[in-house]
Amino acid sequence: MNDPGLLIVVSGPSGAGKGTICNALRKRFPNIYYSISMTTREPRNGEVDGINYFFTDNLHFEELIRIDSFLEYAQVYEHYYGTPKEYVFNMLQQGKNVMLEIDIQGAMQIKNKYPKAVFIYVIPPSLDVLTNRLKSRHTDSANVIARRLAKVKDELEWLSEYEYVVINDELELAVERAAAIIVAEQCKVSRNHHLITSIHAQFKD
Amino acid sequence: MNDPGLLIVVSGPSGAGKGTICNALRKRFPNIYYSISMTTREPRNGEVDGINYFFTDNLHFEELIRIDSFLEYAQVYEHYYGTPKEYVFNMLQQGKNVMLEIDIQGAMQIKNKYPKAVFIYVIPPSLDVLTNRLKSRHTDSANVIARRLAKVKDELEWLSEYEYVVINDELELAVERAAAIIVAEQCKVSRNHHLITSIHAQFKD
Repeated sequence: MNDPGLLIVVSGPSGAGKGTICNALRKRFPNIYYSISMTTREPRNGEVDGINYFFTDNLHFEELIRIDSFLEYAQVYEHYYGTPKEYVFNMLQQGKNVMLEIDIQGAMQIKNKYPKAVFIYVIPPSLDVLTNRLKSRHTDSANVIARRLAKVKDELEWLSEYEYVVINDELELAVERAAAIIVAEQCKVSRNHHLITSIHAQFKD
Repeated sequence: MNDPGLLIVVSGPSGAGKGTICNALRKRFPNIYYSISMTTREPRNGEVDGINYFFTDNLHFEELIRIDSFLEYAQVYEHYYGTPKEYVFNMLQQGKNVMLEIDIQGAMQIKNKYPKAVFIYVIPPSLDVLTNRLKSRHTDSANVIARRLAKVKDELEWLSEYEYVVINDELELAVERAAAIIVAEQCKVSRNHHLITSIHAQFKD
């Protein structure tokens, strides 16, 4: 028997660098699992069902919503995206850690369904840095960048719903902080019932 | 302006290795301060007032108790030992971190007076390991060791009052865990009001 694993939820505004941080954590903690999302959009070139996404149709997706099969889901334009609950809960029950990189709406749904998750919010160190990062991607028009920056303002309002904030001033430092949060959470007394019970038992005789 | 520093309280049964872990943390985080205890016992050879301890007499110590000057104190045989509140609170207010290596009774007093402290409990991985560690010190008689082991049983009952448990199976791993707890606590949203306010302000315009 063991205590459940950690569900680590990483969010943050676009351009904060949460994807890069999650990739670094993935290398650092090979025992962290990633859930595979389900979607109703068409597979793109090279995408494989069961690896990149579980691909399905609207009818099936809506049936899964109805029977509460998602930890979180969203409709983006005409497509659904969601995190199937079963895979994540199976992993956690086996004591395995699962990480989700997810937007704020998704994170808030998870907070409702699984408040024991670890909620990490990645923020840029300043507005200037964020603006420069978005510009340097060269993928977005000035218009899109302006819209993204406006959105960040709203997204920051949700920060107080998270337990941890990781400032991404330097990537290496930010990864250190996120990694420390994972290790520290594993040391929580409330997450180590089985270990503590076994230590107690040894001293009972 | 800044948020207050962390008050890190490290406890655990005798032989768990909390002293060694604290020394390692001290090297790793040169910006952690240690409070100097006050005592009414006589200075030993080489001990310097204001460095090893603040030495004082019973009358003064009891006056300080009366005016609530201690974060915690205890009477051991005929002598008093205590942690003066003023030094610790001054440091915390300046945003500096303070670490206390302290017994469970002291930690519980601090929990009452300053619940925002970070409470870490160091435990040995097993009864066998603890017994071997106590024996290998060669400083204690079999009698003393038996008494210590009996005390550990009672001390473990307090574990649930702590937020974090660090298993000292391997020193290096235990230090990693304790260090991670310190870094993670510094990332708590609830400990970063000033930072978050300043980020919010930048995006308000």
